[in-house]
Amino acid sequence: MESKLKTIRGGEFLIKTSAPDSIFTPEEYTEEHIMLREAIRDFINKEIEPLKETFDSKEGIAVTPKILEKLGQLGFLAISAPESIGGMGCDIKTDLAASEIMSESFSFSQTLGVQRGLGVNTILFYGSKAQKEKYLDDILVGKLKCSYCLTEPGAGSDANSGKTKAVLSEDGKHYILNGQKMWITNAGFADIFSVFCKIEDDENLSCLIVEKEWGVKLGVEENKLGIHGSSTRQVFFEDVKVPVENLLGERNKGFKIAMNALNMGRLMIGIAGSAIGKRAFRLGVQYANQRIQFKKPISSFGAIQEKIAKMATKIYAIESGWNRLAGDMDNLYDEFISEGTPPLKAKQQVAQEFAAECSMIKVFGSEIEQFVVDEALQMHGGMGFSGESEISIHYRNIRGNRIYEGTNEINRLVIPGTIMKYALKGKLPLMESAMQAFQDLQSGNLKPADSTKSFDEFAVEFLDNCKKSAILVSGQAMQKFQQAIQEEQEVLSRLADIITQVYILEGVLLRTSKCKGQNQKIREAICTTFMHDVADSIKVATKEVIFATAEGDMAVISLKAINKLIQLPMHNIIAERRTIATHFIQENEYKI
Amino acid sequence: MESKLKTIRGGEFLIKTSAPDSIFTPEEYTEEHIMLREAIRDFINKEIEPLKETFDSKEGIAVTPKILEKLGQLGFLAISAPESIGGMGCDIKTDLAASEIMSESFSFSQTLGVQRGLGVNTILFYGSKAQKEKYLDDILVGKLKCSYCLTEPGAGSDANSGKTKAVLSEDGKHYILNGQKMWITNAGFADIFSVFCKIEDDENLSCLIVEKEWGVKLGVEENKLGIHGSSTRQVFFEDVKVPVENLLGERNKGFKIAMNALNMGRLMIGIAGSAIGKRAFRLGVQYANQRIQFKKPISSFGAIQEKIAKMATKIYAIESGWNRLAGDMDNLYDEFISEGTPPLKAKQQVAQEFAAECSMIKVFGSEIEQFVVDEALQMHGGMGFSGESEISIHYRNIRGNRIYEGTNEINRLVIPGTIMKYALKGKLPLMESAMQAFQDLQSGNLKPADSTKSFDEFAVEFLDNCKKSAILVSGQAMQKFQQAIQEEQEVLSRLADIITQVYILEGVLLRTSKCKGQNQKIREAICTTFMHDVADSIKVATKEVIFATAEGDMAVISLKAINKLIQLPMHNIIAERRTIATHFIQENEYKI
Repeated sequence: MESKLKTIRGGEFLIKTSAPDSIFTPEEYTEEHIMLREAIRDFINKEIEPLKETFDSKEGIAVTPKILEKLGQLGFLAISAPESIGGMGCDIKTDLAASEIMSESFSFSQTLGVQRGLGVNTILFYGSKAQKEKYLDDILVGKLKCSYCLTEPGAGSDANSGKTKAVLSEDGKHYILNGQKMWITNAGFADIFSVFCKIEDDENLSCLIVEKEWGVKLGVEENKLGIHGSSTRQVFFEDVKVPVENLLGERNKGFKIAMNALNMGRLMIGIAGSAIGKRAFRLGVQYANQRIQFKKPISSFGAIQEKIAKMATKIYAIESGWNRLAGDMDNLYDEFISEGTPPLKAKQQVAQEFAAECSMIKVFGSEIEQFVVDEALQMHGGMGFSGESEISIHYRNIRGNRIYEGTNEINRLVIPGTIMKYALKGKLPLMESAMQAFQDLQSGNLKPADSTKSFDEFAVEFLDNCKKSAILVSGQAMQKFQQAIQEEQEVLSRLADIITQVYILEGVLLRTSKCKGQNQKIREAICTTFMHDVADSIKVATKEVIFATAEGDMAVISLKAINKLIQLPMHNIIAERRTIATHFIQENEYKI
Repeated sequence: MESKLKTIRGGEFLIKTSAPDSIFTPEEYTEEHIMLREAIRDFINKEIEPLKETFDSKEGIAVTPKILEKLGQLGFLAISAPESIGGMGCDIKTDLAASEIMSESFSFSQTLGVQRGLGVNTILFYGSKAQKEKYLDDILVGKLKCSYCLTEPGAGSDANSGKTKAVLSEDGKHYILNGQKMWITNAGFADIFSVFCKIEDDENLSCLIVEKEWGVKLGVEENKLGIHGSSTRQVFFEDVKVPVENLLGERNKGFKIAMNALNMGRLMIGIAGSAIGKRAFRLGVQYANQRIQFKKPISSFGAIQEKIAKMATKIYAIESGWNRLAGDMDNLYDEFISEGTPPLKAKQQVAQEFAAECSMIKVFGSEIEQFVVDEALQMHGGMGFSGESEISIHYRNIRGNRIYEGTNEINRLVIPGTIMKYALKGKLPLMESAMQAFQDLQSGNLKPADSTKSFDEFAVEFLDNCKKSAILVSGQAMQKFQQAIQEEQEVLSRLADIITQVYILEGVLLRTSKCKGQNQKIREAICTTFMHDVADSIKVATKEVIFATAEGDMAVISLKAINKLIQLPMHNIIAERRTIATHFIQENEYKI
């Protein structure tokens, strides 16, 4: 079914050209966005920052419920909730812009993530009128605390294999729930548990809303590598009686609820990478500016400047990527609404539509976060290894982000998987584009970007060539393996890397074109170094896929053609990085 | 001064071709090596393993001294010490082979590292007869515990800028020592402090042996990111009277003592990377073999197999590298001895000679360790983030290894710095080789390795081409910047990466050629994937250096020529990785 909408849909970035004007950038935050972000930052500065050490210990768990209530009373749990139920009714970009600041709240951010993302949204999107009336108001103000029970000891990535089971009571009024869940955030103080389980002998999951007082039993607080101030426990259900009216959504359709919640959850993790990346960046740069060795600040040394430039470039990239996605989501939402889709359904559909993009932001965001935090720690030298340094807290806290909400390995499979599914369904003419690209390649119609043109024009051509490469390589892999590509996880992972690089690059380049005149030299230097990073990594990934899918001369020719296509002109990258570093060293934080 | 020795000397690997027979490999461990390693492993299994959790807390500090004494009584602190003073008199390769096993002792390994490497060696190499008589026997059996006091709050990488100062007492019999040291391992229970300080108004450091009971004051135990069971404190000297006879070595020459001790210390850290890499690998593979998702062990999935193959390849690489260096060190030592150099002086000279190689093993070893531990943790999924999993202990423990003993940034400067120093001194004909390579390049004499030849011959040609690339790029950079290259840390760091890759690759390829018939298919698959890794990373680093040093057409031509030179033929790398993974999944550990 060909879409009649003008806005970009999931996966379409690969085959369409977007104009700078069509994307949303953080430079366009309105007065309202900025005020909201500042209000949240004030809250964090006042309520969380002084408890930084507390939130790095299990003591943080005890203070969490009160802080959650305070935050709820200020309305910050209801930013995206409709005004009709007392929410702020903000659009997605506002909600996500707020999320970024909330992610700076150390281990408290885990509580927030579950309450806002999984707690509010599952009931808001899938709850019956009665369920909403009973729970939602109190959840939105933080009076009822939520947890989300999906993972089991034997069911992690394979969520649908969970053994937790509900059977109907004889009188048909209750489900009798038995089972065990694991790694449950907020479990220690949650009032409400969204429990995924199989009803009777169903093949698929359903979701029940279970109240704590119905007999939910808890394990002890887990010892974790980080986020010590966040409650994480096992949760046990032994013949817990759950009224039948507490089935959330439809029976046997829980997997969809779980996955849809995960799409937004994944996006949030990527945004947390942006947030903690910026915070770690500030810690690193400030340390480097004040630490004197060999009679000067270490930020004056090339080896440190290189780090600063690489970190800043990656932060700029993720920031460009998720803001762009937020804007695209809002646009599609508006289209759905204008077509008559009810608001909540429209939001659900938007999240589902952009499943691949959400996974891309998750993978890229959590990996740049790891990179930036690690480098910021390294810049601290011995102080980085000290438990007293804030950076060491982040180093431990963030390690779960590549594991939660679908490991990055699983998310890498989701990325090409979703796009190929769209292609097979006829939603996305990927194979047609691949064939066209292949013909162009054979007829010599594909040329490297013309570096004699203006920066913007050159960037557009390069981006277009990266897309063509991605399409060619994806098409080649799909043709070779057909349906069996499911089994080729390494190929899929490499395709995910290529596609993600292209998606993020588009955000970076379009944003930079849109922000003409604002620190333009720095932004273009960021673009240049990032283009080189992207080209280098696409080359390696392409090589692996081509050699695994093509044979003999054909492979060599394809590879050469793609390498030529994404060839970049000479650039003193080291000098560009110094230019970037100088700006941020002066700012003493991530500010552009 | 041209060396008359036949053995390879520091930096010479870059310009000479070594035969497989000339290098030492772990496959050649003798019965004696194996027994020694097993004895140490038994000790660790009995004394350390049961206290794994204790060593992950400050309680470990309390039990450390007794365990050190037990280990000392068994002679394990004196493996490399001369038999004349009650040591085992083992050669360097035996000492290092033993070190690898000792590194598996959680935070206790820090204590061992300082006692064996810095404690024993500083006094053994630089102590007077009286100093040795007074201290060494007791150090070697662990009765006297050592610490090494170099770093100060204001003097980390810039060690020579320390403010700790000693002045002669009026009667000339004592130094009066004042100052503050930081991050001092073993401080909590050390009896002996090797303190680097400036005497009077000296420009350079000297080293004093200070006994605890002379009034050394200690800070509290530091909170650290990991290695909680290792004592780390600040150490304060307030008018501490140190007898003048406790000056170690010569006045004003302490920096050399510090640096020479660091060379072996750096090598040890790289070897620890090999040790913990293998341990983490085992934890990861065993978990992947027993964890069932989607009805099969996760080790049967391509995304996991890819990790296993990459981890194993990197471990094989570091293991090849440090064993080869150990053998080269022993050879050079034997040559020095045969020339009449006294044994201790010969050992010192060997360590100094291979300063660059020690730094390479440190950087490569600590970085593969980070990679392997991180991936092994990732393979654990949620369990990896659990504080109860052993892998999470290693994740925290190892983070210091890229910081201690010279940050990896400093070590990256040491690598080309040392080699260029040798070149400028005429010790290493680097510029001559570069000019030759450049002429060959211009006259078209340089060709990619011939893949129609046997694997061994092909590998030799590829290695040779990598060396030529490294030499060309280094020569280009030296010519461009001359003496001012000191200021070009980014260029130096890229050269370090290239040179290190070449050095490790040589170890990998020569070892594999030497081990014909032992799992040959697996080893050759490891070589193939590693060659691709090396080629990819050399290409990126070369690009950065060339674009920072050459201009216009010259840059483009150089880059193309080098890229062609290290071009590899088509290889299904993904399939090769599956081959590698299958072997190690079957072994359920790192074993080849």
